Amino acid sequence: MTLGIATLVTLDDVRAAARRIGDVVRTTPLVRAPVPRSGGRPATDSPDAIWLKCENLQRVSAFKARGAYNFVSRLSEAERAAGLLTYSSGNHAQAVAFAARELGISATIVMPVDAPRVKRRATEALGARVELEGTTSSERKARAEAIQETEGGTMVPPFDDPDIIAGQGTVGLEIVEQLGTRNPGLVLAPIGGGGQLSGVAAAVRGVAPDARVVGVEPIGAASMLRSLEAHAPVTLETVSTVADGLKPVRPGDLTFAHCRDLVDEVVVVEDEWIRDAVRWLFELRLVVEPSGAATVAALLGGAVSPVEEGETVAILSGGNIEPSLLADWLA
Amino acid sequence: MTLGIATLVTLDDVRAAARRIGDVVRTTPLVRAPVPRSGGRPATDSPDAIWLKCENLQRVSAFKARGAYNFVSRLSEAERAAGLLTYSSGNHAQAVAFAARELGISATIVMPVDAPRVKRRATEALGARVELEGTTSSERKARAEAIQETEGGTMVPPFDDPDIIAGQGTVGLEIVEQLGTRNPGLVLAPIGGGGQLSGVAAAVRGVAPDARVVGVEPIGAASMLRSLEAHAPVTLETVSTVADGLKPVRPGDLTFAHCRDLVDEVVVVEDEWIRDAVRWLFELRLVVEPSGAATVAALLGGAVSPVEEGETVAILSGGNIEPSLLADWLA
Repeated sequence: MTLGIATLVTLDDVRAAARRIGDVVRTTPLVRAPVPRSGGRPATDSPDAIWLKCENLQRVSAFKARGAYNFVSRLSEAERAAGLLTYSSGNHAQAVAFAARELGISATIVMPVDAPRVKRRATEALGARVELEGTTSSERKARAEAIQETEGGTMVPPFDDPDIIAGQGTVGLEIVEQLGTRNPGLVLAPIGGGGQLSGVAAAVRGVAPDARVVGVEPIGAASMLRSLEAHAPVTLETVSTVADGLKPVRPGDLTFAHCRDLVDEVVVVEDEWIRDAVRWLFELRLVVEPSGAATVAALLGGAVSPVEEGETVAILSGGNIEPSLLADWLA
Repeated sequence: MTLGIATLVTLDDVRAAARRIGDVVRTTPLVRAPVPRSGGRPATDSPDAIWLKCENLQRVSAFKARGAYNFVSRLSEAERAAGLLTYSSGNHAQAVAFAARELGISATIVMPVDAPRVKRRATEALGARVELEGTTSSERKARAEAIQETEGGTMVPPFDDPDIIAGQGTVGLEIVEQLGTRNPGLVLAPIGGGGQLSGVAAAVRGVAPDARVVGVEPIGAASMLRSLEAHAPVTLETVSTVADGLKPVRPGDLTFAHCRDLVDEVVVVEDEWIRDAVRWLFELRLVVEPSGAATVAALLGGAVSPVEEGETVAILSGGNIEPSLLADWLA
């Protein structure tokens, strides 16, 4: 499958999403920070040189609230009455539960059996019905589709949808707005299914065509990098990473097209860099989950360097880390 | 001792401090949050209704960077050459070490023997010489004065000084600026020696005379409340609280005068509310130390309620919590 440039999400689509979700999601802070580095001395003993976009401080502690609310808010009354379904390793689950509750809609969500407890509990606390199934995105997708067949309802796609992508893209729009007169030189976003990176690329390149937009994947779940090398979406046989939110085995067709056409580079990070990044961010007093720390991991591990011209921005995509895991890593 | 209104720090003093420190400290985010509540369900399942001023995301992870840098930057070349001294339970120590390093000055800092390791290590990492002495502010003050007598240098006061107060007051100035056209109805600040509350009251009341400014003390270290009741600074014989930064046994003369004249009310919080507040803030993905969570504890425990008219702002004054303590509280 190939998708032409005409089908990509545009800056105008992202702006429309921003107007739609503005009263419900948070404008998250863009905070200054030193250049990330590994181990040893505190993170705070160097001058500030980069920016962190704190989607860990978003509603449901993840950027996913943006896309889900944008998608769900566009459904008709009849569609809303039939309820929502989705499948997710965690943050999209909470996001759909959040959007459903905000709009008074029922939601059923299929999560993997190994979903972090913190994500499952939060989804349930938002009033959604949670079903557990398998460990891969394809297993939980199949279960969600089976439920849809018997019970009806609208499936909220995790990433491969223009309204989801446009919603996630509001992160990029906020970044360029918050930088004001400063020039966005490099924007880093993690890649799970590629929804956030796609939307951010559409928004940032739409406003600042010369900005570099770089995606970050775990070395053990590099489905987008492999797909770009193969010039088409490929499915990984196995994935292995501490970043539970970055495990989709295949990019979407639409997110692949965005990354092919709008993203400058995809880099990979080691799990050990991700752990270091979570620790480093804790020293800055930010709670960030492994997936959300991947961009900082890329800087910390040297997979990418801050730019000389313009500002370097790392998106912290979420904060839903199990407290016991964080405690282990900090010990 | 009584101090007249004329000697209080003014809004103009705070504005001058803001210009002086603006390139060195961070403009910290003011983030939306639900009304704090205790236990049970996640903090993120309620609508946003208050604001958190995130000084835990400040340089050295505490507001103290502001006052210390404002004070030190006003010293003469001769004074700078003689070096700095101070005494602190932790955050002022780091702040003075930070200001000294920024300005290329040597610093000796007396900390209590029970100072959180995270604070001591960070102070040393910033290049300061650390001496350990006793557990109370008067013990470490005496040791710092003894060192000053033999070695010289300028003592950087922890709180009872107009330049320190004006520097801390920039937190309040930022709050009113960040609220924009919104009206600051209630601003909550913790009280250690009273420096931040004094400066914040001067700034907030200077811009918005009708705003309520409320101080928060641990019930086991309520030196400002006792002093206000006694109409003069009193010294507590013992203090007991989990909030290691709020332990000064006596307010300053100047901070007492500010609180007497500019602060609407002082409320007290239980240690258990502080623990709950630290946990609740973690659910929002913010790492906040016990002292820094006292304002949220006051809302959570019901010592104070959000205002109906105007915005409610709780200052999170710092984030330097020992990771093992945080892990214990989250377990």
